[in-house]
Amino acid sequence: MSLDFELDFDRQDRIGMGEAIFCEGKSSDQVAGILYAADRRGVSLLLTRCSPALVAALEPSLREALDYDPESRTAYFGTPPSVVSTHDVAIITAGTSDLPVAREIERTLLFNRCAPRLVADVGVAGLWRLQARLPDVADCKVMVVVAGMDAALPTVVGGLVPQPIIGVPRSTGYGAARNGETALMSMLASCAPGLTVVNIDNGYGAACAALRLLKAIKPAA
Amino acid sequence: MSLDFELDFDRQDRIGMGEAIFCEGKSSDQVAGILYAADRRGVSLLLTRCSPALVAALEPSLREALDYDPESRTAYFGTPPSVVSTHDVAIITAGTSDLPVAREIERTLLFNRCAPRLVADVGVAGLWRLQARLPDVADCKVMVVVAGMDAALPTVVGGLVPQPIIGVPRSTGYGAARNGETALMSMLASCAPGLTVVNIDNGYGAACAALRLLKAIKPAA
Amino acid sequence: MSLDFELDFDRQDRIGMGEAIFCEGKSSDQVAGILYAADRRGVSLLLTRCSPALVAALEPSLREALDYDPESRTAYFGTPPSVVSTHDVAIITAGTSDLPVAREIERTLLFNRCAPRLVADVGVAGLWRLQARLPDVADCKVMVVVAGMDAALPTVVGGLVPQPIIGVPRSTGYGAARNGETALMSMLASCAPGLTVVNIDNGYGAACAALRLLKAIKPAA
Amino acid sequence: MSLDFELDFDRQDRIGMGEAIFCEGKSSDQVAGILYAADRRGVSLLLTRCSPALVAALEPSLREALDYDPESRTAYFGTPPSVVSTHDVAIITAGTSDLPVAREIERTLLFNRCAPRLVADVGVAGLWRLQARLPDVADCKVMVVVAGMDAALPTVVGGLVPQPIIGVPRSTGYGAARNGETALMSMLASCAPGLTVVNIDNGYGAACAALRLLKAIKPAA
Amino acid sequence: MSLDFELDFDRQDRIGMGEAIFCEGKSSDQVAGILYAADRRGVSLLLTRCSPALVAALEPSLREALDYDPESRTAYFGTPPSVVSTHDVAIITAGTSDLPVAREIERTLLFNRCAPRLVADVGVAGLWRLQARLPDVADCKVMVVVAGMDAALPTVVGGLVPQPIIGVPRSTGYGAARNGETALMSMLASCAPGLTVVNIDNGYGAACAALRLLKAIKPAA
Amino acid sequence: MSLDFELDFDRQDRIGMGEAIFCEGKSSDQVAGILYAADRRGVSLLLTRCSPALVAALEPSLREALDYDPESRTAYFGTPPSVVSTHDVAIITAGTSDLPVAREIERTLLFNRCAPRLVADVGVAGLWRLQARLPDVADCKVMVVVAGMDAALPTVVGGLVPQPIIGVPRSTGYGAARNGETALMSMLASCAPGLTVVNIDNGYGAACAALRLLKAIKPAA
Amino acid sequence: MSLDFELDFDRQDRIGMGEAIFCEGKSSDQVAGILYAADRRGVSLLLTRCSPALVAALEPSLREALDYDPESRTAYFGTPPSVVSTHDVAIITAGTSDLPVAREIERTLLFNRCAPRLVADVGVAGLWRLQARLPDVADCKVMVVVAGMDAALPTVVGGLVPQPIIGVPRSTGYGAARNGETALMSMLASCAPGLTVVNIDNGYGAACAALRLLKAIKPAA
Amino acid sequence: MSLDFELDFDRQDRIGMGEAIFCEGKSSDQVAGILYAADRRGVSLLLTRCSPALVAALEPSLREALDYDPESRTAYFGTPPSVVSTHDVAIITAGTSDLPVAREIERTLLFNRCAPRLVADVGVAGLWRLQARLPDVADCKVMVVVAGMDAALPTVVGGLVPQPIIGVPRSTGYGAARNGETALMSMLASCAPGLTVVNIDNGYGAACAALRLLKAIKPAA
Repeated sequence: MSLDFELDFDRQDRIGMGEAIFCEGKSSDQVAGILYAADRRGVSLLLTRCSPALVAALEPSLREALDYDPESRTAYFGTPPSVVSTHDVAIITAGTSDLPVAREIERTLLFNRCAPRLVADVGVAGLWRLQARLPDVADCKVMVVVAGMDAALPTVVGGLVPQPIIGVPRSTGYGAARNGETALMSMLASCAPGLTVVNIDNGYGAACAALRLLKAIKPAA
Repeated sequence: MSLDFELDFDRQDRIGMGEAIFCEGKSSDQVAGILYAADRRGVSLLLTRCSPALVAALEPSLREALDYDPESRTAYFGTPPSVVSTHDVAIITAGTSDLPVAREIERTLLFNRCAPRLVADVGVAGLWRLQARLPDVADCKVMVVVAGMDAALPTVVGGLVPQPIIGVPRSTGYGAARNGETALMSMLASCAPGLTVVNIDNGYGAACAALRLLKAIKPAA
Repeated sequence: MSLDFELDFDRQDRIGMGEAIFCEGKSSDQVAGILYAADRRGVSLLLTRCSPALVAALEPSLREALDYDPESRTAYFGTPPSVVSTHDVAIITAGTSDLPVAREIERTLLFNRCAPRLVADVGVAGLWRLQARLPDVADCKVMVVVAGMDAALPTVVGGLVPQPIIGVPRSTGYGAARNGETALMSMLASCAPGLTVVNIDNGYGAACAALRLLKAIKPAA
Repeated sequence: MSLDFELDFDRQDRIGMGEAIFCEGKSSDQVAGILYAADRRGVSLLLTRCSPALVAALEPSLREALDYDPESRTAYFGTPPSVVSTHDVAIITAGTSDLPVAREIERTLLFNRCAPRLVADVGVAGLWRLQARLPDVADCKVMVVVAGMDAALPTVVGGLVPQPIIGVPRSTGYGAARNGETALMSMLASCAPGLTVVNIDNGYGAACAALRLLKAIKPAA
Repeated sequence: MSLDFELDFDRQDRIGMGEAIFCEGKSSDQVAGILYAADRRGVSLLLTRCSPALVAALEPSLREALDYDPESRTAYFGTPPSVVSTHDVAIITAGTSDLPVAREIERTLLFNRCAPRLVADVGVAGLWRLQARLPDVADCKVMVVVAGMDAALPTVVGGLVPQPIIGVPRSTGYGAARNGETALMSMLASCAPGLTVVNIDNGYGAACAALRLLKAIKPAA
Repeated sequence: MSLDFELDFDRQDRIGMGEAIFCEGKSSDQVAGILYAADRRGVSLLLTRCSPALVAALEPSLREALDYDPESRTAYFGTPPSVVSTHDVAIITAGTSDLPVAREIERTLLFNRCAPRLVADVGVAGLWRLQARLPDVADCKVMVVVAGMDAALPTVVGGLVPQPIIGVPRSTGYGAARNGETALMSMLASCAPGLTVVNIDNGYGAACAALRLLKAIKPAA
Repeated sequence: MSLDFELDFDRQDRIGMGEAIFCEGKSSDQVAGILYAADRRGVSLLLTRCSPALVAALEPSLREALDYDPESRTAYFGTPPSVVSTHDVAIITAGTSDLPVAREIERTLLFNRCAPRLVADVGVAGLWRLQARLPDVADCKVMVVVAGMDAALPTVVGGLVPQPIIGVPRSTGYGAARNGETALMSMLASCAPGLTVVNIDNGYGAACAALRLLKAIKPAA
Repeated sequence: MSLDFELDFDRQDRIGMGEAIFCEGKSSDQVAGILYAADRRGVSLLLTRCSPALVAALEPSLREALDYDPESRTAYFGTPPSVVSTHDVAIITAGTSDLPVAREIERTLLFNRCAPRLVADVGVAGLWRLQARLPDVADCKVMVVVAGMDAALPTVVGGLVPQPIIGVPRSTGYGAARNGETALMSMLASCAPGLTVVNIDNGYGAACAALRLLKAIKPAA
């Protein structure tokens, strides 16, 4: 059952995003095979949900070729991207434990040449924090809001600003938080008009949605 | 299978609340039997979740003896209560469709001689509305917050005031609102410290919880 | 318990969308009160999830003032909008039973002065239909994709075009379709990068998300 | 992505409870950063859901500054609190495996200067145990009842005493216990009037709810 | 597609219970066909979950041959049974709305020649009621306990008596009661040893389980 | 928003099945439009999940052109099919209330020129019935097994015969039957090797799966 | 927070079963405390769901005093019981992986002086195995049937024998087996009349239910 | 409690498939006992869901007698099968992480003397890949389609080819993927006519279903 990996090396041309590899559920042999194939074609890759154990299981030459960030479990393979767009995307988080996903968003955006702005720790149980920090991102084109538990933050933000808002529910919390399903359902049922949502903890997907939007705003980029 | 109804006529003495009858799932014959039993003992009753169809199926003499409110589906049977405590309880609602439950809370409190204050339509998708109205209830002893869908309101209130807060999730909305389960889970997973919650749409239960609290504050009442 | 309705008449200025009233769960008296309040201020309203029974229960003068569409259960109250933007939004549907939601999206967009383009009945069980019709909407700025049951359509579209994509899961089907939850979860778990999703059947929310996007793309509009 | 931690150091003044840090989902670096920030301001902290592994990963100076209790997974950081209120709160538990949460409640209350009374192992499958012990807490102002599995205890207590009752469902048991969801739903559906509930295993939240109550009873405290 | 109905007319001999027809989901034509087939063989039948509408749709001769009880939605077809065993089964219910299921149990037992004893309205939110009534059924061989919502009653009974206990969860209540699933799960997770449970509202099944037991106790019966 | 219906009139050639219209969720105007389009092209249609109310809402000329069967809620539109294959498919049902789905399977097969054999009322709570009837279908090429509640029948059949088996879970029953989800999950978790399953109540889909199989067996048919 | 353990040492007298300790969720210190208390009173104990790790964490003197069986995770503490009743209880299992629970049932029965008979590996996907073995247990008073996955076995047994049947759903399997919930729901929805069910994997509870039955059958035992 | 293992050694004759042992949930002692029994009878066995840890715990002589494949967690015990049928079954997978299940299907087929063809990595987010590879399997008799997350692949394939299609949902993904339940439900709700489905990750079951099909097509095989 030998296999060629059918990678999507033309994705950049077709839908404007670089190729990314979702590592969870792949063996280290499979990931290594993909990296060698990319190397042969001279293509850069973004690895997501890539555990430290998986990186450790790669052979040293591959491991060293990776720019790995354990907090976000992402890695860059290939020549580093140079940033073009700056501060078009705001990342707003409710609490400290949302930072790994915020970082996954940031790393995905940077891989696609876009540097975001971050406003952290502004959960609505302490409302004044959000109100103090929101002006910092008022000129961003799109807001990605990361929140877990009751996920009230995107609703409040959505009532205050006119920009597109992408909610990222978090799997933090316990019991009634239901591994993020409560945050997900809460965002979907929000009464702030025009929120959109991605999968629980899906920082990569939220960044891609932001990139689709930036591309629509600035087709030349 | 003839039955005597084992009503809890001493509840007032034991736990400080008048006897209430949960009508849903009871036949009109059963409710009539209960009303006659209460009448024989000269006891007042509060009927909850009492549908217009149930009231219509009672015989005229009973129906006329009821002080029935169709919005909240509650009825008083027996001599009307006189209010003693005023404005100790605040009822805060997110939207217009929360009013039937707000009214059930109010009617339950009035039946137990307590007149609440109401702040309506202050959902957090329009944050300034809450901020404008919160001072009106700052001296209340306890806040009952009614909200559906994402149910973000109790979290925001809980971060702003020191009073006990009882959240009542609402079954409004559709799809991801899951008949109120999302609101319920969202309140339970809230990061505002010290919120407590009752069953979906359970205005009666929230009022009883407020009454237990008032009794603890003012034992003589 | 008399109430003033705390409508959000400044929403147009703040977040760029006209005021809309979610009618489900409101009594006809409540809706009538809202319409009179809007009339006094000369504000136009969009009514959503407004059943024929609710419209029929309004008094004739109000009922006649509504531009009501039973298929989408939406109504306009007030002076009709004039369209400014044309064909910036594509609505793509999988099957005939998705049309009520497509129509809700269209009516919400028209109320906000934007006329969409529609590509219907292109579910992926007959793939050639989608491939034949996709060029018709290639120059749209944003794609709203409506699909129920297995909801495979947004994934396929998302792999073919670079635009922002807003998925609207539908509550059609039975059994394993779980009233739209399968379509919702399927869209959220999609492997096409950068899809975003709104609540089941939430055509209004999808249109609002598209409007936020258009506003970001063309700030002057 | 360097961050200042936006701690809520004024919470004591605003809502009457000391600042607490929810440690689950935070890295040891994040927790260390928070402790240093608190230390610089001279603020005491309560750490909750703080695993032994997390404590072990802190550097020795921080670790030694903690008053850590592994059973409840709580820690005090800073000068120990002196108790003011005594025996205002009763903690009632159904079984031996409820003790870690009972201890979390006790430690949270002590951190806020309140010493509770404990009645343990009085599950209703052995009813006489509850009846023998209930008089011991009859003069408490508020009862916190911890129970898992079928969680029948708060219903029985709620029918016997007039005090405010805060139910804490436990994640003990297996199969139909559903990690505490059965206990949670059972408490919410209880027919004892006026029970309120917090999240599964949320001893911290229950203690905070009790503190809000005590503050309402004794505003000067 | 003409059909002979494959009834189980020998069930009485094989497993000691008369043939019963579950009517829900059967058309009136199907039920009529079954009744005619039973009539031809001279066999008595018990009809369960038989709605008034179904009975009304039968032709008059069949309808008159039924001994129909609308409360329990059961009917006897054929010669009435004569009671042999008396008071071997206790039926204990928590509230008034449990009576239709109690009646289904009673009617199923009577059809199998066993007359039960009933103790109603002894829910544990008013514990003294149970304690007063339990001696009345102390010499019964088996206890069937019907309870909805939090379903705490079988746990308390199970801790007090040594008999076999069959719990019947009820679909009463709303919200967190989840149409009886909370009562079902609560009974299954009970910490009283040796409770067994049947399906939600399944009075017929509980009666059959009691009959299996009586047959084991008195093989000659 | 005028629409041409994008029907799949070439389905017969491509995947070997005639075009079918799923009527649930379609308005009578939509169905009428589809029928007129089929009429113009001279194509026969199978209508599924077609309620009597929908048929009644069609105009008389269309209604009379339908060969409608209310039990299975199916209709034929166009020239009646002539049967070619006989007795290649066995339909085996557990109980009387499975007959509407059995009939939907039969009508779908007949529309595609295949006449099935039916073995009804052989649920495994009366095992001898199955054992007596199974020889009647021993020479069928494929077995479609319809069963609700615990859905044990396909497991037992699957252990006795070597043919392909398609399980159709039924939405009959109540409580723990969960509208057919228990039957569905039970079939999927079956320990009989090689069972396959379709959606709850999906007789049409089961018939199509059988047709795919027959086509593979007899490519010329 | 020092505690006396409120053990139920009189359970034998009251409900006819020896005291048992559910070990899951208890620390080794708590279990040791309970064992010492039992030792002081000279009471025997049955430990259930007692992991090898828990046993290993006890101090040697306690560990050696236990008669521990790792397969069933049960232990006896105190003088071994002498069997009185023999072969009154049949344990019937569907597959090899049901044996740990079968063993838990057997050990619980033996602790209460009753020796059961075992019929293993008779799942209904191979029907002849059950038919061959069922006569071996035809004279047992009660049947405990253990089955996972689709749990069809109790339905088939329930249709063949008149004895009381206690179903024990197993958490074996994966995916659609849902950790035993499918087996549980399948047993509850069974169409075999008079099955009763205990919690998933609850061998202890099933044995206790059988003991209640035996006590009703033979009061003198 | 010594046991003979009731293996189903005649399965080959009865339903045309060799005996397979589901290893999950069995101890290494149990598996060893089964292997010895098979060895005594000279029967070959297929082991499924057999973890490396289980293999490692077998004694060396047994371990060496196994042809073990860790990727698919399958092992052959006994003389290797010789392939008879070639390329009658197509295995089509959406992504790299579906390969372990594809391999389980292949190994099960090979054990039953059938060699399949594999088309991998053709998920519909990159539609051209599927369209390029589908002709390679156009002459296969049956298609097994493995897909996780939104599982759109079987729907697209089902609309393009007339063969029988067996969908295997995968447990890959996170959050909304719900451990494969979304993929399962999505396949069941598919609008492509005639798809059938097996349990999540159940490669063995899908292969058995394909074998039943091949046997129906080529009875002599």
